[in-house]
Amino acid sequence: MINKLVDKIRKTNAPIVVGLDPMMNYIPEHIIKKAFAEYGETLEGAAEAVWQYNKGIIDATYDLIPAVKPQIAMYEQFGIEGLKAFKRTCEYAKEKDLVVIGDIKRGDIGSTSAAYATGHLGKVKVGSNTFSAFDEDFVTVNPYLGTDGVKPFVDVCKEEKKGLFILVKTSNPSSGEFQDRIIDGRPLYEWVGEKVAEWGADHMGKEYSYIGAVVGATYPEMGKILRKQMPKTFILVPGYGAQGGKGKDLVHFFNEDGLGAIINSSRGIIAAYKQEAYAKFGAENYAEASRQATLDMIEDISHAMQNR
Amino acid sequence: MINKLVDKIRKTNAPIVVGLDPMMNYIPEHIIKKAFAEYGETLEGAAEAVWQYNKGIIDATYDLIPAVKPQIAMYEQFGIEGLKAFKRTCEYAKEKDLVVIGDIKRGDIGSTSAAYATGHLGKVKVGSNTFSAFDEDFVTVNPYLGTDGVKPFVDVCKEEKKGLFILVKTSNPSSGEFQDRIIDGRPLYEWVGEKVAEWGADHMGKEYSYIGAVVGATYPEMGKILRKQMPKTFILVPGYGAQGGKGKDLVHFFNEDGLGAIINSSRGIIAAYKQEAYAKFGAENYAEASRQATLDMIEDISHAMQNR
Repeated sequence: MINKLVDKIRKTNAPIVVGLDPMMNYIPEHIIKKAFAEYGETLEGAAEAVWQYNKGIIDATYDLIPAVKPQIAMYEQFGIEGLKAFKRTCEYAKEKDLVVIGDIKRGDIGSTSAAYATGHLGKVKVGSNTFSAFDEDFVTVNPYLGTDGVKPFVDVCKEEKKGLFILVKTSNPSSGEFQDRIIDGRPLYEWVGEKVAEWGADHMGKEYSYIGAVVGATYPEMGKILRKQMPKTFILVPGYGAQGGKGKDLVHFFNEDGLGAIINSSRGIIAAYKQEAYAKFGAENYAEASRQATLDMIEDISHAMQNR
Repeated sequence: MINKLVDKIRKTNAPIVVGLDPMMNYIPEHIIKKAFAEYGETLEGAAEAVWQYNKGIIDATYDLIPAVKPQIAMYEQFGIEGLKAFKRTCEYAKEKDLVVIGDIKRGDIGSTSAAYATGHLGKVKVGSNTFSAFDEDFVTVNPYLGTDGVKPFVDVCKEEKKGLFILVKTSNPSSGEFQDRIIDGRPLYEWVGEKVAEWGADHMGKEYSYIGAVVGATYPEMGKILRKQMPKTFILVPGYGAQGGKGKDLVHFFNEDGLGAIINSSRGIIAAYKQEAYAKFGAENYAEASRQATLDMIEDISHAMQNR
């Protein structure tokens, strides 16, 4: 799957991923009205609105981008109905040949991580049948529990030809509270990065490992160091746009080959129509606004890469 | 909810929680057969088996214990149908007046943690209505992202009178890989413990904070230190029984008042009938075996506490 991701990035010339993190207040009125008319002001109604909103964005952007990253929390808050919308979104994105990165940030002791890996990347056995429950292509994983919490995910990736992005340095303001603490002269995130590179070394695709890392766009200097420390690791970079990261901050996340990183934007793309720059599209044409914001993001990154 | 948990522990004299972590190979043949006869060898069939199995265990133990801790990964592996069984299990346990600790180990950047907190502890707004999606009483949280990843959970707990158990030192063999690394002379887990105590100080129930910690039974010496460091923090202690922890290892997790800790056993209770000691019950009476294993665990801990 890492090979497919790299191929698609080359083909689209867009090392970006659209974060499908729908909040009710992002969804245009006409979609909400229609969903509530059909299902009422219920969890089912909310889930229908989320799904229709996502479908519009996927339809308007799938030819420009290699991947989408649905954030499962935004669906989980609507319970079972929300998770059905998550699954439907993953399935639809795959129909459009997009790589699906499930942003689930799971991680637990061995047997429990194995169950998560089964549910999100693998197949579960029921009697003599097997089923894929959510079937993402990549998932994000939390490393706090160490190797035996990560290995079950790696094992399933190997079997299913899928991949991981493991949290190394997150994009949020307080990520430094533990991640930046100094251990034997180096911050914790570097030790985690070193482990990710180690886990990844035995799990290589053609050019890059299918065990990747998450490093926030909001910490470009740290990205620069981690890029060097993990040359074969693909880095998923959240925090572009709404969280403050800009194209010029991102160049050091890439290798000399122009690859090795994929930049996520969520709100900046999916709720573009709410920004002044895209207000002219109007809520009715929110998906067209998302398409324009995607084109602009590709241009911003491409421009920064040419001038690095 | 921490007050209810403490009251129920006092009333049952059982500082224990039964981990409802169903694996297909734990579930007795007669339950699986019946579920498959009704729903086929499908995800629905698996979920029905899980639910019936859980119901049997809850019915056989609810008068002895204060709480249950369903591990969501074991349900999530069966997708939507599995998560329905999770929800049904939580609801049924609450009908039986048990405190429900959702072992979900979520944690993300602020807005995303807020969505998880809403889905698992709070209420989500849909139009003019509000809904509880999963509605556990407590959830477990991963601290790797720092304060702004935890605070949204704390905020919802405050509003809904619910609680958290935040991972400090986990029970698995490789937990030390990052958690034990020394920072300014003290291991990372102590720094996390200190933060948990700090987050908890402003969020007190009658005797204990509703912001608790997870510390593995498999690391009793570390438990002893953390107990002193976090005197008002309730500690959820996994790793008893199958993972290797014993009653005598656990006494230092408790305060002088005999409170402050709740010990989890999963496999040791829910799959007791598979152990030699309880084989006489047979698979048909698996729930009775679970009841006996619960009584034995209460006795083991009570004995250890009397002899500390």
